[in-house]
Amino acid sequence: MIITKKKVEFHTPWFELVAKTVHDPSDPSGKDESYYSISANDYVCILALTPEEKIIMVKQFRPSVEDYTLELPAGYVDNGETPLHASQRELQEETGYLCKDVELLGCLQPDTGRLGNHQWCFFAKNVILEAHNEANTEKGITRVLLTKAELKEYILAGKFKHALHLASIYLAILNNKIIL
Amino acid sequence: MIITKKKVEFHTPWFELVAKTVHDPSDPSGKDESYYSISANDYVCILALTPEEKIIMVKQFRPSVEDYTLELPAGYVDNGETPLHASQRELQEETGYLCKDVELLGCLQPDTGRLGNHQWCFFAKNVILEAHNEANTEKGITRVLLTKAELKEYILAGKFKHALHLASIYLAILNNKIIL
Repeated sequence: MIITKKKVEFHTPWFELVAKTVHDPSDPSGKDESYYSISANDYVCILALTPEEKIIMVKQFRPSVEDYTLELPAGYVDNGETPLHASQRELQEETGYLCKDVELLGCLQPDTGRLGNHQWCFFAKNVILEAHNEANTEKGITRVLLTKAELKEYILAGKFKHALHLASIYLAILNNKIIL
Repeated sequence: MIITKKKVEFHTPWFELVAKTVHDPSDPSGKDESYYSISANDYVCILALTPEEKIIMVKQFRPSVEDYTLELPAGYVDNGETPLHASQRELQEETGYLCKDVELLGCLQPDTGRLGNHQWCFFAKNVILEAHNEANTEKGITRVLLTKAELKEYILAGKFKHALHLASIYLAILNNKIIL
């Protein structure tokens, strides 16, 4: 299959909607088809544990789902930034926690049907709260600390239902970083 | 937080790009902000096992990522259709396998930052190939059967990297349907 044409149909500050024309060389009589996808910078998320082995989550209002959600600290990789740095930056900005040793768990495709970017999944332990940041987090974001047993209970009860971050948690389990 | 305005900025046959204006009642001096999200029907995916405990996957070209991907059978819920029926239909259309007893593993949010829909995750065992469909699958889709050991190896090696479906596989593990 060959992409013969790409056209940006709509710009936003965070992503572009792109129409791609796909040609199948094995089907000379076939009609070229148009597919719409979202082009954006890569995502990062970080599974971060405090020295007490609590998992750091964030609660925030998400206009897409029109509700408050519970998620791992996460965000876009900025232009020119490494995914690793983005994971450290997002953790600090959203929760006030600092992490020195960050490990890459894997690089996933968030939604092959719609999104062209990747999600870089990171893990860090022994993360430490900034001295001057006992209470503050990014505007609109509430820091939530869960035990591993609570996280498992939340997943099974449908209270934690962020698919992309659930996949990252599973990568951490498969890589023997955490046991739920 | 309140959504005060919604405007469809772009239509495609599969989704709409919507601009939502969000107002924060707790911040009277704050400026209302615009967020862009994708509005679409819900997704389904199905983790289906043959009587020999092989996992049924599909390989196909995905214009969004401009590559061939390995995924669970999956797709949109049609208008007026139940998620459960959609999972049975997608399995049959994409792989030729029939399943009678389908169990819901959970309902996840695919991407709270961008997508407003849900992903319904299903599980079925002892699925049977249609008698007249030994070779055929949907145009452009290749059926792939993996053992559980192979799937685990593929995940760890980054050869299976579909985040949404990885989350569904983890739900199957947490619900004691499968051990990888």
